[in-house]
Amino acid sequence: MENRSVPVHGDLEAMLEKVNVDDAFAKTVGMRVVELSPGYAKALMDVTDDHVNLFRMAHGGAIFSVADHACEAAGNSFGKPAVAIQNNIHFLSSGTSGDRLEATARVVHRTRRIGLIEATVRNQRHEILAQCHQVIYFKASKA
Amino acid sequence: MENRSVPVHGDLEAMLEKVNVDDAFAKTVGMRVVELSPGYAKALMDVTDDHVNLFRMAHGGAIFSVADHACEAAGNSFGKPAVAIQNNIHFLSSGTSGDRLEATARVVHRTRRIGLIEATVRNQRHEILAQCHQVIYFKASKA
Amino acid sequence: MENRSVPVHGDLEAMLEKVNVDDAFAKTVGMRVVELSPGYAKALMDVTDDHVNLFRMAHGGAIFSVADHACEAAGNSFGKPAVAIQNNIHFLSSGTSGDRLEATARVVHRTRRIGLIEATVRNQRHEILAQCHQVIYFKASKA
Amino acid sequence: MENRSVPVHGDLEAMLEKVNVDDAFAKTVGMRVVELSPGYAKALMDVTDDHVNLFRMAHGGAIFSVADHACEAAGNSFGKPAVAIQNNIHFLSSGTSGDRLEATARVVHRTRRIGLIEATVRNQRHEILAQCHQVIYFKASKA
Repeated sequence: MENRSVPVHGDLEAMLEKVNVDDAFAKTVGMRVVELSPGYAKALMDVTDDHVNLFRMAHGGAIFSVADHACEAAGNSFGKPAVAIQNNIHFLSSGTSGDRLEATARVVHRTRRIGLIEATVRNQRHEILAQCHQVIYFKASKA
Repeated sequence: MENRSVPVHGDLEAMLEKVNVDDAFAKTVGMRVVELSPGYAKALMDVTDDHVNLFRMAHGGAIFSVADHACEAAGNSFGKPAVAIQNNIHFLSSGTSGDRLEATARVVHRTRRIGLIEATVRNQRHEILAQCHQVIYFKASKA
Repeated sequence: MENRSVPVHGDLEAMLEKVNVDDAFAKTVGMRVVELSPGYAKALMDVTDDHVNLFRMAHGGAIFSVADHACEAAGNSFGKPAVAIQNNIHFLSSGTSGDRLEATARVVHRTRRIGLIEATVRNQRHEILAQCHQVIYFKASKA
Repeated sequence: MENRSVPVHGDLEAMLEKVNVDDAFAKTVGMRVVELSPGYAKALMDVTDDHVNLFRMAHGGAIFSVADHACEAAGNSFGKPAVAIQNNIHFLSSGTSGDRLEATARVVHRTRRIGLIEATVRNQRHEILAQCHQVIYFKASKA
């Protein structure tokens, strides 16, 4: 009945569970959302021998994935479905098997239709592996 | 003996095999390089139920990964090790389980140290899912 | 009365004149739109001693400006007001006083609300100085 | 005689004067560097009727220019010549004649050859007009 632009806590808890249970790619690459609040999310990925490229470094696709996963959760945290339309990522240092990657994503700007998310991927020593900015589009609610 | 900046066919064949055998993340997410020539590569990914997000669409990380994988092969096709330093991706349409994604990557500009790669991800109907530009840095050879 | 998504020729002619007469910044930096059709525009800038930086090269702001100017015309060529929300530019070679820069912009993807424009800046020798992709947002018509 | 990677204060003062005296495009569009320290610069632009587009808003090229100008100063503040190779800008709100734009640029990551600069353009009400990330390449010193 009411018009909520920010979901109440229960909605976010439900979404947090949903994204961790229903996101198949997240399971495939071993990442999960561990924090979620309106406009903010944190995701984790433990880099294993399954995430490295032929140089034995964490694949760029793996690093991007955990950042994008945090962005997906943060972007959808307002109770409106959001889709990513662009993402610019800077790779600053490399990762190796054994690293724990933590991606934090924060919506830094938002209009009715467009949002900008800033995300940072750090390892367990708090070194920044990647920094990215994602533009999202809030779809019209089908209400 | 000679100073080659472009690898001969045999080198690329060896690299093509190496990337498909030794890249663990490529196996994890089910992608492989199927064409490789100096400055060009093509990679494939069959989208399955393992690649979708909670909206049942191909995860942005999966789409980026196959593009990045083609870029990695194309960037390293000149006989000099290359690392990605930045990638800007535009997501243009979505993918679903059953789609075959084809990513083509082409080095469109190159100096001694810096390269620009253009990559496009298409589905089996030749619709463009994503377009990206990656900046790479050619490391000094340790010769 | 009719619902036009593509302006008729007369509209574009009027807009071409309008952009060249009313865009003050274009006059300040010496650029003008010389071609305009639905989804496409070409702009020119003659690099003079007024456009160089302290290294005597065309300032990045000048190169971006002529690209952005072509994007602005192309993005607004469909009869719907469009605003730029993001632009990723790659600087590939430098320009000097005496160069004529030609920026071509083409809308390569378009939904009801979002568009992607690809623009290229070349000099009189057809060398590419810069390549960029701009995301635009089509505002709701105030009808 | 010594190998300095960070210029002493006198060098930066000289460079600050040089960029404000010798950068012709900066004069053309009315911008100037007002602060400079190793890895950081601030530039100002007063938006006048000369900076607006046909919608009477500050032209995207003007907003980018002041950001790029601050980046140029920050990137060259280490005593090594730097060139911009890529810049991703997000336009978040618009500017009008009468606004004072302040662009701050900070080098947030740096290797021997590659740097990443983060720049923000704010108006006199501290609203963010644009945010950008620029990749720079440090040229080998000709020593």
